[in-house]
Amino acid sequence: MTYEVKSLNEECGVFGIWGHPDAAKLTYFGLYSLQHRGQEGAGILSNDAGQLKRHRDMGLLSEVFRDPANLDKLTGKAAIGHVRYATAGEASVDNIQPFMFKFHDGQLGLAHNGNLTNAVSLRRELEKNGAIFSSTSDSEILAHLIRRSHNPSFMGKVKEALNTVKGGFAYLLMIEDKLIAALDPNGFRPLSIGKMANGAIVVSSETCAFEVVGAEWIRDVNPGEVVIIDDNGITYDNYTTDTQLAVCSMEYIYFARPDSNIRGVNVHTARKRMGAQLAREFKHEADIVVGVPNSSLSAAMGFAEESGLPNEMGLIKNQYTQRTFIQPTQELREQGVRMKLSAVSGVVKGKRVVMIDDSIVRGTTSRRIVQLLKEAGATEVHVAIGSPALAYPCFYGIDIQTRKELIAANHTVEEIREIIGADSLTYLSIDGLIDSIGIDTDEPNGGLCVDYFTGKYSTPLYDYEKSYLESLEEHTSFY
Amino acid sequence: MTYEVKSLNEECGVFGIWGHPDAAKLTYFGLYSLQHRGQEGAGILSNDAGQLKRHRDMGLLSEVFRDPANLDKLTGKAAIGHVRYATAGEASVDNIQPFMFKFHDGQLGLAHNGNLTNAVSLRRELEKNGAIFSSTSDSEILAHLIRRSHNPSFMGKVKEALNTVKGGFAYLLMIEDKLIAALDPNGFRPLSIGKMANGAIVVSSETCAFEVVGAEWIRDVNPGEVVIIDDNGITYDNYTTDTQLAVCSMEYIYFARPDSNIRGVNVHTARKRMGAQLAREFKHEADIVVGVPNSSLSAAMGFAEESGLPNEMGLIKNQYTQRTFIQPTQELREQGVRMKLSAVSGVVKGKRVVMIDDSIVRGTTSRRIVQLLKEAGATEVHVAIGSPALAYPCFYGIDIQTRKELIAANHTVEEIREIIGADSLTYLSIDGLIDSIGIDTDEPNGGLCVDYFTGKYSTPLYDYEKSYLESLEEHTSFY
Amino acid sequence: MTYEVKSLNEECGVFGIWGHPDAAKLTYFGLYSLQHRGQEGAGILSNDAGQLKRHRDMGLLSEVFRDPANLDKLTGKAAIGHVRYATAGEASVDNIQPFMFKFHDGQLGLAHNGNLTNAVSLRRELEKNGAIFSSTSDSEILAHLIRRSHNPSFMGKVKEALNTVKGGFAYLLMIEDKLIAALDPNGFRPLSIGKMANGAIVVSSETCAFEVVGAEWIRDVNPGEVVIIDDNGITYDNYTTDTQLAVCSMEYIYFARPDSNIRGVNVHTARKRMGAQLAREFKHEADIVVGVPNSSLSAAMGFAEESGLPNEMGLIKNQYTQRTFIQPTQELREQGVRMKLSAVSGVVKGKRVVMIDDSIVRGTTSRRIVQLLKEAGATEVHVAIGSPALAYPCFYGIDIQTRKELIAANHTVEEIREIIGADSLTYLSIDGLIDSIGIDTDEPNGGLCVDYFTGKYSTPLYDYEKSYLESLEEHTSFY
Amino acid sequence: MTYEVKSLNEECGVFGIWGHPDAAKLTYFGLYSLQHRGQEGAGILSNDAGQLKRHRDMGLLSEVFRDPANLDKLTGKAAIGHVRYATAGEASVDNIQPFMFKFHDGQLGLAHNGNLTNAVSLRRELEKNGAIFSSTSDSEILAHLIRRSHNPSFMGKVKEALNTVKGGFAYLLMIEDKLIAALDPNGFRPLSIGKMANGAIVVSSETCAFEVVGAEWIRDVNPGEVVIIDDNGITYDNYTTDTQLAVCSMEYIYFARPDSNIRGVNVHTARKRMGAQLAREFKHEADIVVGVPNSSLSAAMGFAEESGLPNEMGLIKNQYTQRTFIQPTQELREQGVRMKLSAVSGVVKGKRVVMIDDSIVRGTTSRRIVQLLKEAGATEVHVAIGSPALAYPCFYGIDIQTRKELIAANHTVEEIREIIGADSLTYLSIDGLIDSIGIDTDEPNGGLCVDYFTGKYSTPLYDYEKSYLESLEEHTSFY
Repeated sequence: MTYEVKSLNEECGVFGIWGHPDAAKLTYFGLYSLQHRGQEGAGILSNDAGQLKRHRDMGLLSEVFRDPANLDKLTGKAAIGHVRYATAGEASVDNIQPFMFKFHDGQLGLAHNGNLTNAVSLRRELEKNGAIFSSTSDSEILAHLIRRSHNPSFMGKVKEALNTVKGGFAYLLMIEDKLIAALDPNGFRPLSIGKMANGAIVVSSETCAFEVVGAEWIRDVNPGEVVIIDDNGITYDNYTTDTQLAVCSMEYIYFARPDSNIRGVNVHTARKRMGAQLAREFKHEADIVVGVPNSSLSAAMGFAEESGLPNEMGLIKNQYTQRTFIQPTQELREQGVRMKLSAVSGVVKGKRVVMIDDSIVRGTTSRRIVQLLKEAGATEVHVAIGSPALAYPCFYGIDIQTRKELIAANHTVEEIREIIGADSLTYLSIDGLIDSIGIDTDEPNGGLCVDYFTGKYSTPLYDYEKSYLESLEEHTSFY
Repeated sequence: MTYEVKSLNEECGVFGIWGHPDAAKLTYFGLYSLQHRGQEGAGILSNDAGQLKRHRDMGLLSEVFRDPANLDKLTGKAAIGHVRYATAGEASVDNIQPFMFKFHDGQLGLAHNGNLTNAVSLRRELEKNGAIFSSTSDSEILAHLIRRSHNPSFMGKVKEALNTVKGGFAYLLMIEDKLIAALDPNGFRPLSIGKMANGAIVVSSETCAFEVVGAEWIRDVNPGEVVIIDDNGITYDNYTTDTQLAVCSMEYIYFARPDSNIRGVNVHTARKRMGAQLAREFKHEADIVVGVPNSSLSAAMGFAEESGLPNEMGLIKNQYTQRTFIQPTQELREQGVRMKLSAVSGVVKGKRVVMIDDSIVRGTTSRRIVQLLKEAGATEVHVAIGSPALAYPCFYGIDIQTRKELIAANHTVEEIREIIGADSLTYLSIDGLIDSIGIDTDEPNGGLCVDYFTGKYSTPLYDYEKSYLESLEEHTSFY
Repeated sequence: MTYEVKSLNEECGVFGIWGHPDAAKLTYFGLYSLQHRGQEGAGILSNDAGQLKRHRDMGLLSEVFRDPANLDKLTGKAAIGHVRYATAGEASVDNIQPFMFKFHDGQLGLAHNGNLTNAVSLRRELEKNGAIFSSTSDSEILAHLIRRSHNPSFMGKVKEALNTVKGGFAYLLMIEDKLIAALDPNGFRPLSIGKMANGAIVVSSETCAFEVVGAEWIRDVNPGEVVIIDDNGITYDNYTTDTQLAVCSMEYIYFARPDSNIRGVNVHTARKRMGAQLAREFKHEADIVVGVPNSSLSAAMGFAEESGLPNEMGLIKNQYTQRTFIQPTQELREQGVRMKLSAVSGVVKGKRVVMIDDSIVRGTTSRRIVQLLKEAGATEVHVAIGSPALAYPCFYGIDIQTRKELIAANHTVEEIREIIGADSLTYLSIDGLIDSIGIDTDEPNGGLCVDYFTGKYSTPLYDYEKSYLESLEEHTSFY
Repeated sequence: MTYEVKSLNEECGVFGIWGHPDAAKLTYFGLYSLQHRGQEGAGILSNDAGQLKRHRDMGLLSEVFRDPANLDKLTGKAAIGHVRYATAGEASVDNIQPFMFKFHDGQLGLAHNGNLTNAVSLRRELEKNGAIFSSTSDSEILAHLIRRSHNPSFMGKVKEALNTVKGGFAYLLMIEDKLIAALDPNGFRPLSIGKMANGAIVVSSETCAFEVVGAEWIRDVNPGEVVIIDDNGITYDNYTTDTQLAVCSMEYIYFARPDSNIRGVNVHTARKRMGAQLAREFKHEADIVVGVPNSSLSAAMGFAEESGLPNEMGLIKNQYTQRTFIQPTQELREQGVRMKLSAVSGVVKGKRVVMIDDSIVRGTTSRRIVQLLKEAGATEVHVAIGSPALAYPCFYGIDIQTRKELIAANHTVEEIREIIGADSLTYLSIDGLIDSIGIDTDEPNGGLCVDYFTGKYSTPLYDYEKSYLESLEEHTSFY
């Protein structure tokens, strides 16, 4: 089974390793399995006996390291890497991580997955005091906070800085003699620790990378935790104990690879349970189940098994779509030219189809797929979504920072059904979602962040507070 | 659903169009959906009012036309295109099709899918008479035969040449005022004709291309047929009536895209039926069904539905594997580094797995996947193959021309099971295969070529006869 | 001193070597020194124990072999190479040489410098007999003639073919066990033989390549000669004795590198003598001598020394002009933006300048340079050309095949002076040219081809006869 | 005449423009003429109504802007550009200029030619106060000083910063509404101001760029001057009046293009005078003068005219040497393979040659050229250098920061002559140099910096003081 990326975007993936002679190469393989978390750019920074080296560039990992010499030069037994998702307008190699800072008295590497909620005010304050940023990325702020801290010890500086930044973050820091991993107090972003046969320690946004490099999972990093990895092994410490687990539920719904486990729950299995629960909540008659490739195939399996309907390959995705520079013109599109997704008329013709998708953002993709299925002969298309309606922004690391683009922030379910041209539209309930994922915890919402479904946020919003409140006035509530 | 290519290789895909102002661009989109039939190189040749123009190069279609200017220059209302599979050692741009020949008295374009069985002797004879070939490809022979024919009419020359070449072939020829399509007397290779809304005629190796360009299927080209397409429409003619349908069954089993229809049978549906039939022939107990992505997912669906076992995503394929230039060293592979395929331990741990695959060629891939599943915790792995044992070479267009590489040519089923480390091994029966595909015909073997399973060939083998007979002596019969 | 290429173009350079383990690499270095003879494309073909291998592509040699792997794979102890000049509209990798032909009974490599005068009729005749050409280049004809010859020996076939083609040619042929060099009966094109310290034999269009690879010059190939180089050494033979030396005088005037020697005459020294002779024929007063870089610097030296005027660097050429894809727009050019050539006002201001150039083709370049000098403050610009007026086409290897583009075919000297805006215009006399070059021979015109100055051709014109005679009627004679 | 770069390297060239709709494109053309000042990397930063945009990369300008889209996106009516020379080990795109800084309250672009003598201590001090540098380049320091200045006005901050940095510098700064140019108090580096026909103001390291963009020279920037260019025109101001002109004499000797004028003196003319003066100081008999291409051709002209000896093209440089990735192996070099420079035996054989070069750094190049000439048959080679012996480091912008590499820091003239294998060796006298250049000024040393000849430095050396004094102890004085 493969996976894909669509208009809903995670902000980045990180991978780190300490204690292996092929550190940079293993980081390459680890990032390779995290490529779905960011396709704008990639970079690897290695630590060769205290000397940091880096290569980064725009593009897919395989393009960034098209010339193997760029990887070979990253010698050393420790490394961190990053794949980055492109936010519009900021596409520049300056923003590609890991960041590398060389001071007269030391070196620092930094990779970050997440989004800070007080970045604008922190940056403004720092610049007023003479700071010069080399990127437009918020990730750089932590480095400035560390360098300006008056705490006498390096780890003291790091903890002070981690307590200053707010929002969602999984950080990897590399200095001369250690690799440091840190997670935000809500554990919004996933971050896991593993171990290789030779004793090397690895850290990754997703556990799928452990399979790839042959490492064994040890445990997930906890909220508020800072983990120090060096030649003496792993030291777990906390920079704060004011924590509450709220894992991003979209990781289970859409972002993460099906073979990853987050907080002890396998993603494919969670999705299959979402599909089964969705089947129980679904109220219509149909003949076949068709999942939208590739992200909804697990949910479609679960729906089919629970409902007893046959699971069919009614939609085909071209696997070579990544790289083409040639697209159909509007005129050709109107003549029916479509490159990426085809409906299989031999499968859907004359059938009442349950079309399973993981989520609806703007609604344009759903409308297009419903239309494809109908043109291919489906008599009815019932859209069933493996998650609740996405009606509010995320400020902790998913690229939805305005309500304008969200169809569910502006329309009722019936209106959306009408817009996408479906015969029915069913969203999974929030409770159904929480139960399906089933993290073993007593935290509220089953330890999940479901803020983009409820509009009730886990933390203060800081710099986003004002614009968020304004946006609420413009839109009607969904539920 | 996506699809993929593995060590078993089709030799090429062709696409042609007559009568559309965006002919070359539509050929690009058509070839895009045929990319799975050949990744070594690609080319498009257009016909602008009798003037042939071409661009071709090594690499994927999207790389060959990375600079859109190379497509834009292919003006004209007709075009043919080709994607080529790489046979070892012959990788050279000279072999990339379409071929283009410019004579003082005319121009000729040529694209070919298939393999000729008398190419060596024809080429030798032609060279003895002064012919100079510009490629090492057999496809070029037809052009020499046409130019040397003494038949007074061009179509007469073409028919004479088509009767001279033997084996499997689907040809597209472009001359000043027409596009010509021709199929071998057994119809080994698929070739279909469609029509666009504006009246343009399209020809394609697979009907999936029709979906992509918005064309409607008219009918498949018949064995022994030569089809002339020009401004007057389509003319069907025969260069021979000594024909017998024997469609390559591997097209249904593995090569073709699931959304294509061949001889009226949808490929996904055929595969699902093969999976269901395989479930009926399967004699073991198990807990879950896991298809090897991506080619075996349809068969796994059919197996699961027929057997009542849950269909699970127990294997994950990285979707970004096409382009990396960096591979794990042997040492890293031994440490467990694997880039392309991962087993999902959260799914398979403690389970008796039925692993569905489409075929076994050398057995090395199967052994690796069985091992992956066991390392991930599967207690038993029962391998079930959606086709009969591949024990004989193909001479009509699949790249298996020796028995040495075929594990089933040299080992019994029990030996193969042992080699791949499975707990059981089940092949689909030949009758089960024929019934599952179910072409509506009275021809022997249900209109299918099953020669690579039976060793009984549909035609004389010409240049291959001697080496084939010798190879038989070295190997024991499979069945 | 460097050299350059302008709108007057040589058609190609060839280099060959037999007997060195680094044959392909030495061919690369040899071609590198012949790059000025062709920038459209380049290729090298090696012979590894009878197995020919080749790499060729569009672009400069350094780009064609940008990936050193493409050179490394050209193993073997013999090689031939080619740099090609682009004739308009035929830019295609199919035309890049060396050509490589692989037959069932042998292999043949071919590289050609020159132009055939009976190519059109030979090609037509061959195609009528079933020949298929893989390029639009005339060079391929020889291979077809060789393959179709009924002469029993290979060298017999080659000689027969060489007697069939007419015009100007220097050929290198590579077969399994020998390298063959052949020159046309007039020796229009230069071709020399040298020897390396290890005994390897080299053949080159120009002797400058011998300096580069550390070889010693043996002798020039004679008109009508075919030279066989193999493990037994060099064998000189003649395919015809009906010869008459007529070396292209433009090689001395413009094409060849100043450090090459042709027929025993050093090119720089010949140019300096042309400059000195031009000074003697020059009838005006002036203050300084300024050569147009880079091709006219030798002539400027000779003029300055003979005239006693100071030689000044009044024009500067940007050395990085080869590769830019960005050119001034017409609007910016009108504002005075000029990238390639600058006049040095600090040198020419207030001076009467003798501007030395090697030749005038269309006159546009001369007019632009005169204008540059005047804008930079030169009070007078006297143009002195180191060759006679170019008034007739060349059919033996220079890319001037029509009289339309030649300003001297359509205007008197006084008219040209007026058009280019000079205060005076002096051409070198034909006798002055012949005396300045001074080949040690009794052949007519001092062994030189001066046909493009006189309109009296050294050979019949074959396919060009008719169009040439027609063109004469449209234009007045120059002298 | 072209020019070249050798082992002696200038550190960078800058170009700026204010007030032209094609600002970035003109900056491209300007930089194009400054390419000889730096080939490691290049960049252009434009100002579109206050919004700064930039493209920069490693490589030649034409490669950096290979895709014209990268230039087209640099909209706006003002721009600055930079070409960078590579110092070993620091090759990274992070160091390519112009630097661009985006603050919450403004934007700043910066380009720098020169070298600061107190960079190490300034950087250390800044980092101690929390500054984070994005590059390892000293050029970035000025930006930090400006941002941290407490002066209330922006120009006040700039002046304060310019008074803090020491050494050699020509800075271009771009902010929202102005372009600022500043020169160090000694005017070590050249910097000139020009005006285009449309009123646009241009600033350039060399005046040759004015010819290229069609601008007229206004005047050179003075030592200690800061020039503000905005929509109101040019404002000249001083940040210090404690100045003393000491133009880098190596600009005249080697770096600058012959068509540039510095402090009113044309570079070609100065070189010709150096050659003439060298002829007067030369004490040997010889037959011909041969300049080493391309930098010594002016001096050779002057020497030849003054001495009455003929000026000959005895050395040829291949003009295609910039880009090849293939170099002769040591073994091939020993067999005499040489790609870049050839001696012309037809010219030098049997002659006593005066070989004119601009300078000697390590002596290895000189030795190689002397050997080439002798192998080509020169009976004597008298080396005459157009400058005094280079015996001391430069700290103001030339890449010679240690005495170890300088042959004249460690050997007498007679020893050097012996090492390079010449029959005699003549250096130009320091007085001869100063007289030949002849700037119209009363400043000491004729307004020139000759510190690398004398070891007496124009300014305190700050961070270099200690290591310089230590190096002196290890070496004997040259004079």
